[in-house]
Amino acid sequence: MVNPEIVLFANEAFYLAFNNRDLEAMEKLWSRHTPPVCIHPGWSGLYNRNEIMKSWQDIFSNENAQQFILCHNSRIFFQQDIMSVICFEQLAEEWLIATNNFVLEEGDVRIFHHQASQCFDPPDVIEQIRPSFQ
Amino acid sequence: MVNPEIVLFANEAFYLAFNNRDLEAMEKLWSRHTPPVCIHPGWSGLYNRNEIMKSWQDIFSNENAQQFILCHNSRIFFQQDIMSVICFEQLAEEWLIATNNFVLEEGDVRIFHHQASQCFDPPDVIEQIRPSFQ
Repeated sequence: MVNPEIVLFANEAFYLAFNNRDLEAMEKLWSRHTPPVCIHPGWSGLYNRNEIMKSWQDIFSNENAQQFILCHNSRIFFQQDIMSVICFEQLAEEWLIATNNFVLEEGDVRIFHHQASQCFDPPDVIEQIRPSFQ
Repeated sequence: MVNPEIVLFANEAFYLAFNNRDLEAMEKLWSRHTPPVCIHPGWSGLYNRNEIMKSWQDIFSNENAQQFILCHNSRIFFQQDIMSVICFEQLAEEWLIATNNFVLEEGDVRIFHHQASQCFDPPDVIEQIRPSFQ
């Protein structure tokens, strides 16, 4: 079993890549051997690595897109070799709740499933955000 | 590997239980040994079987809640022993996109993860809905 801290690290790296608009980091994070699924809020699903990377590129280059996400209250579930993180995403004017599923590929913890959906019932108590590892 | 038809059957049974407001059927469908996650649209996550069943009971007894869901365009992904179905949910006035993850427990295919989120980009072409198996 992968150390939960390593999974949380990968989950944070995902939000760091988003916040830094770092397409290269995002590309490294996504699975290469596991069929990927990405469901951005309001979108239908993307099921192809190239399509998913194109979507991040479009989001990163869109000046009107959300600029920053704070990730809170991550919970980890291990289901066989899948590591699932459920967390809240705090944006400037709304909250989302996301499922981020990871697998171990070639020694790296990589994301293969991301679904973020609007949350009208965000947590009252927000855990301290974990320190940046940059 | 479980036959994909059996997984689709379980996925349809989930929507049939919803449409029939059949709490007993819903209870049978949810995992008993795998930690469950249920993220209703707009809600935060529920992580406890009793809480999840209470939520369905509340939804089923709420006259204002959505009465009927049509499930379209199901896609199946097998990831080790997890069977993941991504499908569109057509409601009276909106579309959602859902992830429903299943496991095999005691010979039954049971759902342990449900997340439904708003979809503003539903499919143009809707596959014929599969025949009811009632």
